[in-house]
Amino acid sequence: MTETTERARRGPRGEYAKTGAKREAILAAALGVFAESGYRAGSLREIATRVGMSEAGLLHHFPNKEALLAAVLDRRDGDDLSRVHIIVDAEDGAETLRGLVELAAHNASVPGVVELYCTLSAEATSPDHPAHGYFLGRYDWARGMVGRAFERIARDGRLREGADPARAAIATLALMDGLQVQWLLNRDVVDMSEALREYFAGLVADF
Amino acid sequence: MTETTERARRGPRGEYAKTGAKREAILAAALGVFAESGYRAGSLREIATRVGMSEAGLLHHFPNKEALLAAVLDRRDGDDLSRVHIIVDAEDGAETLRGLVELAAHNASVPGVVELYCTLSAEATSPDHPAHGYFLGRYDWARGMVGRAFERIARDGRLREGADPARAAIATLALMDGLQVQWLLNRDVVDMSEALREYFAGLVADF
Repeated sequence: MTETTERARRGPRGEYAKTGAKREAILAAALGVFAESGYRAGSLREIATRVGMSEAGLLHHFPNKEALLAAVLDRRDGDDLSRVHIIVDAEDGAETLRGLVELAAHNASVPGVVELYCTLSAEATSPDHPAHGYFLGRYDWARGMVGRAFERIARDGRLREGADPARAAIATLALMDGLQVQWLLNRDVVDMSEALREYFAGLVADF
Repeated sequence: MTETTERARRGPRGEYAKTGAKREAILAAALGVFAESGYRAGSLREIATRVGMSEAGLLHHFPNKEALLAAVLDRRDGDDLSRVHIIVDAEDGAETLRGLVELAAHNASVPGVVELYCTLSAEATSPDHPAHGYFLGRYDWARGMVGRAFERIARDGRLREGADPARAAIATLALMDGLQVQWLLNRDVVDMSEALREYFAGLVADF
Protein backbone atom coordinates (compact mmCIF):
# COMPACT_ATOMS: atom_id res chain seq x y z
CA MET A 1 0.00 0.00 0.00
CA THR A 2 2.77 2.42 0.89
CA GLU A 3 4.53 1.41 -2.33
CA THR A 4 1.46 2.31 -4.42
CA THR A 5 0.98 5.67 -2.73
CA GLU A 6 4.68 6.39 -3.18
CA ARG A 7 4.55 5.52 -6.86
CA ALA A 8 1.57 7.84 -7.43
CA ARG A 9 3.37 10.68 -5.70
CA ARG A 10 6.77 10.38 -7.39
CA GLY A 11 5.58 9.48 -10.86
CA PRO A 12 6.83 6.55 -12.93
CA ARG A 13 10.28 7.93 -13.79
CA GLY A 14 11.42 8.67 -10.23
CA GLU A 15 9.87 5.45 -9.03
CA TYR A 16 11.63 3.49 -11.75
CA ALA A 17 15.01 4.90 -10.81
CA LYS A 18 14.32 4.25 -7.15
CA THR A 19 13.21 0.70 -7.88
CA GLY A 20 16.33 0.15 -9.98
CA ALA A 21 18.60 1.32 -7.15
CA LYS A 22 16.76 -0.87 -4.66
CA ARG A 23 17.04 -3.88 -6.97
CA GLU A 24 20.78 -3.26 -7.29
CA ALA A 25 21.15 -3.04 -3.52
CA ILE A 26 19.15 -6.23 -3.04
CA LEU A 27 21.23 -8.09 -5.66
CA ALA A 28 24.48 -6.98 -4.02
CA ALA A 29 23.24 -8.08 -0.59
CA ALA A 30 21.97 -11.39 -1.98
CA LEU A 31 25.34 -12.07 -3.60
CA GLY A 32 27.03 -11.49 -0.24
CA VAL A 33 24.64 -13.66 1.74
CA PHE A 34 24.57 -16.54 -0.77
CA ALA A 35 28.38 -16.40 -1.01
CA GLU A 36 28.83 -16.54 2.76
CA SER A 37 26.11 -19.00 3.72
CA GLY A 38 25.24 -20.77 0.48
CA TYR A 39 21.88 -20.50 -1.21
CA ARG A 40 20.08 -22.99 1.01
CA ALA A 41 21.23 -21.58 4.32
CA GLY A 42 21.15 -17.95 3.13
CA SER A 43 17.88 -16.38 4.26
CA LEU A 44 15.72 -13.75 2.62
CA ARG A 45 15.38 -12.13 6.03
CA GLU A 46 19.16 -11.64 6.27
CA ILE A 47 19.26 -10.15 2.76
CA ALA A 48 16.36 -7.82 3.58
CA THR A 49 18.05 -6.76 6.83
CA ARG A 50 21.26 -5.83 4.99
CA VAL A 51 19.38 -3.42 2.73
CA GLY A 52 17.20 -2.12 5.55
CA MET A 53 13.96 -3.61 4.25
CA SER A 54 11.35 -6.00 5.51
CA GLU A 55 11.13 -9.45 3.93
CA ALA A 56 7.76 -8.44 2.47
CA GLY A 57 9.35 -5.34 0.94
CA LEU A 58 12.04 -7.50 -0.66
CA LEU A 59 9.40 -9.84 -2.09
CA HIS A 60 7.87 -6.81 -3.80
CA HIS A 61 11.00 -6.73 -6.00
CA PHE A 62 11.59 -10.46 -6.40
CA PRO A 63 8.65 -12.86 -6.08
CA ASN A 64 10.71 -15.56 -4.33
CA LYS A 65 14.20 -16.72 -3.39
CA GLU A 66 14.69 -18.62 -6.65
CA ALA A 67 13.90 -15.57 -8.75
CA LEU A 68 16.39 -13.60 -6.69
CA LEU A 69 19.10 -16.21 -7.24
CA ALA A 70 18.42 -16.25 -11.00
CA ALA A 71 18.74 -12.44 -11.08
CA VAL A 72 22.04 -12.57 -9.16
CA LEU A 73 23.49 -15.12 -11.60
CA ASP A 74 22.22 -13.31 -14.70
CA ARG A 75 23.73 -10.06 -13.54
CA ARG A 76 27.16 -11.57 -12.82
CA ASP A 77 27.27 -13.29 -16.20
CA GLY A 78 26.50 -10.00 -17.92
CA ASP A 79 29.16 -8.20 -15.88
CA ASP A 80 31.76 -10.85 -16.63
CA LEU A 81 31.17 -10.80 -20.36
CA SER A 82 31.28 -7.03 -20.59
CA ARG A 83 34.30 -6.58 -18.32
CA VAL A 84 36.56 -9.37 -19.45
CA HIS A 85 37.03 -9.77 -23.16
CA ILE A 86 36.97 -13.48 -23.60
CA ILE A 87 37.09 -13.72 -27.32
CA VAL A 88 34.56 -16.43 -27.94
CA ASP A 89 35.29 -18.29 -31.15
CA ALA A 90 38.35 -16.17 -31.93
CA GLU A 91 40.15 -17.40 -35.03
CA ASP A 92 43.30 -17.88 -32.91
CA GLY A 93 42.30 -20.31 -30.14
CA ALA A 94 45.09 -19.00 -27.91
CA GLU A 95 43.23 -15.66 -27.76
CA THR A 96 40.34 -17.37 -26.01
CA LEU A 97 42.72 -19.00 -23.54
CA ARG A 98 44.36 -15.64 -22.85
CA GLY A 99 40.87 -14.29 -22.14
CA LEU A 100 40.46 -16.99 -19.49
CA VAL A 101 43.76 -16.03 -17.86
CA GLU A 102 42.47 -12.44 -17.82
CA LEU A 103 39.21 -13.63 -16.26
CA ALA A 104 41.12 -15.49 -13.53
CA ALA A 105 43.08 -12.30 -12.79
CA HIS A 106 39.85 -10.32 -12.63
CA ASN A 107 38.27 -12.90 -10.32
CA ALA A 108 41.08 -12.33 -7.83
CA SER A 109 39.66 -8.81 -7.38
CA VAL A 110 36.12 -10.00 -6.55
CA PRO A 111 36.40 -12.66 -3.82
CA GLY A 112 32.68 -12.39 -2.99
CA VAL A 113 31.73 -13.44 -6.49
CA VAL A 114 34.27 -16.27 -6.48
CA GLU A 115 32.86 -17.46 -3.16
CA LEU A 116 29.32 -17.33 -4.58
CA TYR A 117 30.23 -19.50 -7.54
CA CYS A 118 32.23 -21.99 -5.46
CA THR A 119 29.49 -22.47 -2.91
CA LEU A 120 26.63 -22.45 -5.39
CA SER A 121 28.20 -24.76 -7.95
CA ALA A 122 28.85 -27.31 -5.19
CA GLU A 123 25.31 -27.03 -3.80
CA ALA A 124 23.80 -27.03 -7.27
CA THR A 125 25.22 -30.44 -8.16
CA SER A 126 22.05 -31.74 -6.43
CA PRO A 127 19.40 -32.20 -9.13
CA ASP A 128 16.75 -30.58 -6.91
CA HIS A 129 18.71 -27.33 -6.47
CA PRO A 130 17.12 -24.35 -8.25
CA ALA A 131 20.43 -23.46 -9.93
CA HIS A 132 21.11 -27.05 -11.13
CA GLY A 133 19.94 -26.34 -14.68
CA TYR A 134 21.84 -23.07 -14.76
CA PHE A 135 25.14 -24.76 -13.88
CA LEU A 136 24.55 -27.69 -16.25
CA GLY A 137 24.02 -25.22 -19.09
CA ARG A 138 26.92 -23.02 -18.02
CA TYR A 139 29.42 -25.90 -18.00
CA ASP A 140 28.12 -27.26 -21.33
CA TRP A 141 28.53 -23.84 -22.91
CA ALA A 142 31.97 -23.28 -21.39
CA ARG A 143 33.26 -26.77 -22.34
CA GLY A 144 32.11 -26.13 -25.93
CA MET A 145 33.71 -22.68 -26.05
CA VAL A 146 37.05 -23.81 -24.62
CA GLY A 147 36.97 -27.07 -26.61
CA ARG A 148 36.63 -25.13 -29.88
CA ALA A 149 39.60 -22.96 -28.89
CA PHE A 150 41.74 -26.08 -28.37
CA GLU A 151 40.52 -27.50 -31.70
CA ARG A 152 41.74 -24.40 -33.51
CA ILE A 153 45.04 -24.63 -31.63
CA ALA A 154 45.34 -28.28 -32.71
CA ARG A 155 44.51 -27.31 -36.30
CA ASP A 156 47.33 -24.75 -36.15
CA GLY A 157 49.70 -27.50 -34.98
CA ARG A 158 50.24 -25.90 -31.57
CA LEU A 159 48.52 -28.43 -29.27
CA ARG A 160 50.81 -30.79 -27.37
CA GLU A 161 50.92 -34.21 -28.98
CA GLY A 162 48.54 -36.66 -27.36
CA ALA A 163 46.30 -33.94 -25.91
CA ASP A 164 42.61 -33.99 -26.82
CA PRO A 165 40.69 -30.69 -27.26
CA ALA A 166 37.50 -31.82 -25.49
CA ARG A 167 39.38 -33.31 -22.55
CA ALA A 168 41.67 -30.29 -22.31
CA ALA A 169 38.52 -28.13 -22.05
CA ILE A 170 37.20 -30.22 -19.14
CA ALA A 171 40.56 -30.00 -17.38
CA THR A 172 40.79 -26.23 -17.97
CA LEU A 173 37.43 -25.56 -16.29
CA ALA A 174 38.25 -28.00 -13.49
CA LEU A 175 41.57 -26.28 -12.86
CA MET A 176 39.91 -22.85 -12.75
CA ASP A 177 37.25 -24.07 -10.30
CA GLY A 178 39.67 -25.92 -8.05
CA LEU A 179 42.13 -23.03 -7.90
CA GLN A 180 39.32 -20.86 -6.55
CA VAL A 181 38.79 -23.13 -3.53
CA GLN A 182 42.48 -23.09 -2.58
CA TRP A 183 42.70 -19.35 -3.27
CA LEU A 184 39.67 -18.58 -1.08
CA LEU A 185 41.18 -20.65 1.73
CA ASN A 186 44.63 -19.13 1.49
CA ARG A 187 45.29 -16.27 -0.93
CA ASP A 188 49.01 -16.16 -0.20
CA VAL A 189 49.55 -19.65 -1.55
CA VAL A 190 47.73 -19.50 -4.88
CA ASP A 191 48.02 -17.18 -7.89
CA MET A 192 45.04 -18.25 -9.99
CA SER A 193 45.90 -16.55 -13.27
CA GLU A 194 49.56 -17.56 -13.13
CA ALA A 195 48.64 -21.20 -12.44
CA LEU A 196 46.25 -21.21 -15.38
CA ARG A 197 48.83 -19.57 -17.65
CA GLU A 198 51.37 -22.25 -16.72
CA TYR A 199 48.87 -24.98 -17.50
CA PHE A 200 48.24 -23.52 -20.96
CA ALA A 201 51.98 -23.05 -21.53
CA GLY A 202 52.41 -26.79 -21.00
CA LEU A 203 49.69 -27.58 -23.55
CA VAL A 204 50.10 -24.93 -26.24
CA ALA A 205 53.31 -24.14 -28.12
CA ASP A 206 54.51 -20.53 -27.76
CA PHE A 207 51.66 -19.59 -25.43
CA MET B 1 17.11 -41.97 31.96
CA THR B 2 16.05 -44.69 29.58
CA GLU B 3 19.64 -44.86 28.32
CA THR B 4 20.93 -45.46 31.87
CA THR B 5 18.36 -48.16 32.62
CA GLU B 6 19.12 -49.79 29.29
CA ARG B 7 22.86 -49.77 30.00
CA ALA B 8 22.36 -51.38 33.40
CA ARG B 9 20.22 -54.11 31.89
CA ARG B 10 22.45 -54.98 28.92
CA GLY B 11 25.82 -54.58 30.57
CA PRO B 12 28.70 -52.54 29.23
CA ARG B 13 29.69 -54.79 26.34
CA GLY B 14 26.27 -54.97 24.68
CA GLU B 15 25.73 -51.28 25.32
CA TYR B 16 29.09 -50.47 23.81
CA ALA B 17 28.30 -52.40 20.64
CA LYS B 18 24.89 -50.78 20.46
CA THR B 19 26.37 -47.33 20.95
CA GLY B 20 28.95 -48.04 18.26
CA ALA B 21 26.29 -49.11 15.79
CA LYS B 22 24.22 -46.03 16.58
CA ARG B 23 27.23 -43.78 16.13
CA GLU B 24 27.92 -45.37 12.76
CA ALA B 25 24.32 -44.86 11.69
CA ILE B 26 24.41 -41.23 12.81
CA LEU B 27 27.69 -40.59 10.96
CA ALA B 28 26.31 -42.12 7.77
CA ALA B 29 23.13 -40.03 8.03
CA ALA B 30 25.13 -36.88 8.80
CA LEU B 31 27.34 -37.47 5.76
CA GLY B 32 24.24 -37.72 3.59
CA VAL B 33 22.55 -34.63 5.02
CA PHE B 34 25.69 -32.46 4.94
CA ALA B 35 26.44 -33.61 1.38
CA GLU B 36 22.94 -32.78 0.17
CA SER B 37 22.28 -29.55 2.04
CA GLY B 38 25.70 -28.37 3.14
CA TYR B 39 26.74 -28.12 6.75
CA ARG B 40 25.02 -24.82 7.48
CA ALA B 41 21.65 -25.74 6.00
CA GLY B 42 21.84 -29.38 7.12
CA SER B 43 19.88 -29.78 10.35
CA LEU B 44 20.45 -32.06 13.32
CA ARG B 45 16.72 -32.76 13.30
CA GLU B 46 16.92 -34.14 9.74
CA ILE B 47 19.90 -36.32 10.68
CA ALA B 48 18.10 -37.59 13.80
CA THR B 49 14.96 -38.32 11.77
CA ARG B 50 16.93 -40.42 9.28
CA VAL B 51 18.21 -42.69 12.04
CA GLY B 52 14.86 -42.75 13.84
CA MET B 53 16.02 -40.82 16.89
CA SER B 54 15.07 -37.60 18.59
CA GLU B 55 17.43 -34.65 18.37
CA ALA B 56 18.09 -35.04 22.12
CA GLY B 57 18.97 -38.69 21.56
CA LEU B 58 21.45 -37.70 18.87
CA LEU B 59 23.04 -35.12 21.17
CA HIS B 60 23.68 -37.96 23.62
CA HIS B 61 26.21 -39.32 21.10
CA PHE B 62 27.65 -36.04 19.79
CA PRO B 63 27.52 -32.95 22.02
CA ASN B 64 26.84 -30.56 19.11
CA LYS B 65 26.74 -30.16 15.34
CA GLU B 66 30.42 -29.19 15.13
CA ALA B 67 31.53 -32.32 16.97
CA LEU B 68 29.40 -34.37 14.59
CA LEU B 69 31.00 -32.72 11.56
CA ALA B 70 34.49 -33.32 12.95
CA ALA B 71 33.65 -37.00 13.48
CA VAL B 72 32.32 -37.33 9.91
CA LEU B 73 35.52 -35.83 8.47
CA ASP B 74 37.82 -37.88 10.70
CA ARG B 75 36.09 -41.08 9.73
CA ARG B 76 36.28 -40.37 5.98
CA ASP B 77 39.97 -39.52 6.17
CA GLY B 78 40.65 -42.78 7.97
CA ASP B 79 38.63 -44.73 5.41
CA ASP B 80 40.40 -43.08 2.49
CA LEU B 81 43.85 -43.76 3.82
CA SER B 82 43.12 -47.39 4.58
CA ARG B 83 41.28 -48.12 1.33
CA VAL B 84 43.42 -46.34 -1.20
CA HIS B 85 47.12 -46.90 -1.02
CA ILE B 86 48.52 -43.48 -1.63
CA ILE B 87 52.14 -44.08 -1.04
CA VAL B 88 53.07 -41.01 0.92
CA ASP B 89 56.71 -40.12 0.46
CA ALA B 90 57.37 -43.07 -1.84
CA GLU B 91 60.90 -43.07 -3.19
CA ASP B 92 59.47 -42.96 -6.72
CA GLY B 93 57.29 -39.82 -6.87
CA ALA B 94 55.26 -41.30 -9.71
CA GLU B 95 53.98 -43.92 -7.22
CA THR B 96 52.32 -41.18 -5.20
CA LEU B 97 50.72 -39.72 -8.32
CA ARG B 98 49.43 -43.16 -9.31
CA GLY B 99 47.91 -43.39 -5.82
CA LEU B 100 46.01 -40.16 -6.56
CA VAL B 101 44.69 -41.58 -9.83
CA GLU B 102 43.53 -44.61 -7.84
CA LEU B 103 41.88 -42.31 -5.30
CA ALA B 104 40.02 -40.46 -8.07
CA ALA B 105 38.77 -43.81 -9.40
CA HIS B 106 37.65 -44.81 -5.91
CA ASN B 107 35.88 -41.48 -5.44
CA ALA B 108 33.76 -42.20 -8.51
CA SER B 109 32.22 -45.05 -6.49
CA VAL B 110 31.24 -42.84 -3.52
CA PRO B 111 29.35 -39.83 -4.93
CA GLY B 112 27.94 -38.93 -1.49
CA VAL B 113 31.42 -38.46 -0.08
CA VAL B 114 32.51 -36.44 -3.11
CA GLU B 115 29.44 -34.24 -2.70
CA LEU B 116 30.25 -33.77 0.99
CA TYR B 117 33.77 -32.58 0.27
CA CYS B 118 32.73 -30.31 -2.61
CA THR B 119 30.01 -28.59 -0.62
CA LEU B 120 31.96 -28.42 2.63
CA SER B 121 35.23 -27.19 1.16
CA ALA B 122 33.36 -24.36 -0.58
CA GLU B 123 31.43 -23.42 2.58
CA ALA B 124 34.52 -23.77 4.73
CA THR B 125 36.45 -21.12 2.80
CA SER B 126 34.69 -18.69 5.20
CA PRO B 127 37.00 -18.16 8.19
CA ASP B 128 34.06 -18.53 10.62
CA HIS B 129 33.09 -21.99 9.37
CA PRO B 130 33.79 -24.77 11.89
CA ALA B 131 35.64 -26.82 9.27
CA HIS B 132 37.81 -23.89 8.08
CA GLY B 133 40.86 -25.01 10.05
CA TYR B 134 40.36 -28.60 8.97
CA PHE B 135 40.44 -27.68 5.28
CA LEU B 136 43.38 -25.28 5.69
CA GLY B 137 45.36 -28.08 7.29
CA ARG B 138 44.18 -30.67 4.79
CA TYR B 139 45.28 -28.61 1.78
CA ASP B 140 48.62 -27.72 3.39
CA TRP B 141 49.31 -31.36 4.05
CA ALA B 142 48.21 -32.45 0.58
CA ARG B 143 50.20 -29.73 -1.20
CA GLY B 144 53.27 -30.79 0.75
CA MET B 145 52.77 -34.48 0.00
CA VAL B 146 52.18 -33.98 -3.74
CA GLY B 147 54.89 -31.32 -3.96
CA ARG B 148 57.47 -33.76 -2.54
CA ALA B 149 56.40 -36.34 -5.11
CA PHE B 150 57.01 -33.85 -7.94
CA GLU B 151 60.37 -32.90 -6.40
CA ARG B 152 61.48 -36.53 -6.54
CA ILE B 153 60.23 -36.77 -10.12
CA ALA B 154 62.25 -33.64 -10.98
CA ARG B 155 65.31 -35.11 -9.23
CA ASP B 156 64.91 -38.21 -11.40
CA GLY B 157 64.84 -35.98 -14.50
CA ARG B 158 61.26 -36.91 -15.37
CA LEU B 159 59.45 -33.59 -14.74
CA ARG B 160 58.61 -31.55 -17.84
CA GLU B 161 61.01 -28.70 -18.36
CA GLY B 162 59.77 -25.42 -16.91
CA ALA B 163 57.35 -27.11 -14.49
CA ASP B 164 57.70 -26.30 -10.79
CA PRO B 165 56.99 -29.00 -8.15
CA ALA B 166 55.13 -26.73 -5.70
CA ARG B 167 52.98 -25.19 -8.42
CA ALA B 168 52.30 -28.57 -10.00
CA ALA B 169 51.05 -29.72 -6.60
CA ILE B 170 48.60 -26.81 -6.36
CA ALA B 171 47.35 -27.49 -9.89
CA THR B 172 46.99 -31.23 -9.17
CA LEU B 173 44.73 -30.63 -6.17
CA ALA B 174 42.81 -27.93 -8.05
CA LEU B 175 42.23 -30.28 -10.97
CA MET B 176 41.00 -33.06 -8.67
CA ASP B 177 38.59 -30.70 -6.90
CA GLY B 178 37.28 -29.08 -10.06
CA LEU B 179 36.75 -32.40 -11.82
CA GLN B 180 34.50 -33.43 -8.93
CA VAL B 181 32.13 -30.52 -9.52
CA GLN B 182 31.75 -31.31 -13.24
CA TRP B 183 31.46 -35.03 -12.50
CA LEU B 184 28.73 -34.50 -9.88
CA LEU B 185 26.80 -32.34 -12.34
CA ASN B 186 27.14 -34.72 -15.26
CA ARG B 187 28.80 -38.08 -14.79
CA ASP B 188 28.63 -39.00 -18.48
CA VAL B 189 30.89 -36.14 -19.47
CA VAL B 190 33.76 -36.54 -17.02
CA ASP B 191 36.08 -39.45 -16.19
CA MET B 192 37.92 -38.11 -13.14
CA SER B 193 40.74 -40.63 -12.91
CA GLU B 194 41.40 -40.59 -16.66
CA ALA B 195 41.56 -36.79 -16.73
CA LEU B 196 44.01 -36.81 -13.84
CA ARG B 197 46.13 -39.50 -15.48
CA GLU B 198 46.32 -37.44 -18.67
CA TYR B 199 47.40 -34.39 -16.73
CA PHE B 200 50.22 -36.35 -15.10
CA ALA B 201 51.20 -37.87 -18.44
CA GLY B 202 51.73 -34.34 -19.78
CA LEU B 203 53.97 -33.46 -16.84
CA VAL B 204 55.90 -36.64 -16.11
CA ALA B 205 57.96 -38.60 -18.62
CA ASP B 206 56.85 -42.26 -19.06
CA PHE B 207 53.96 -41.88 -16.61
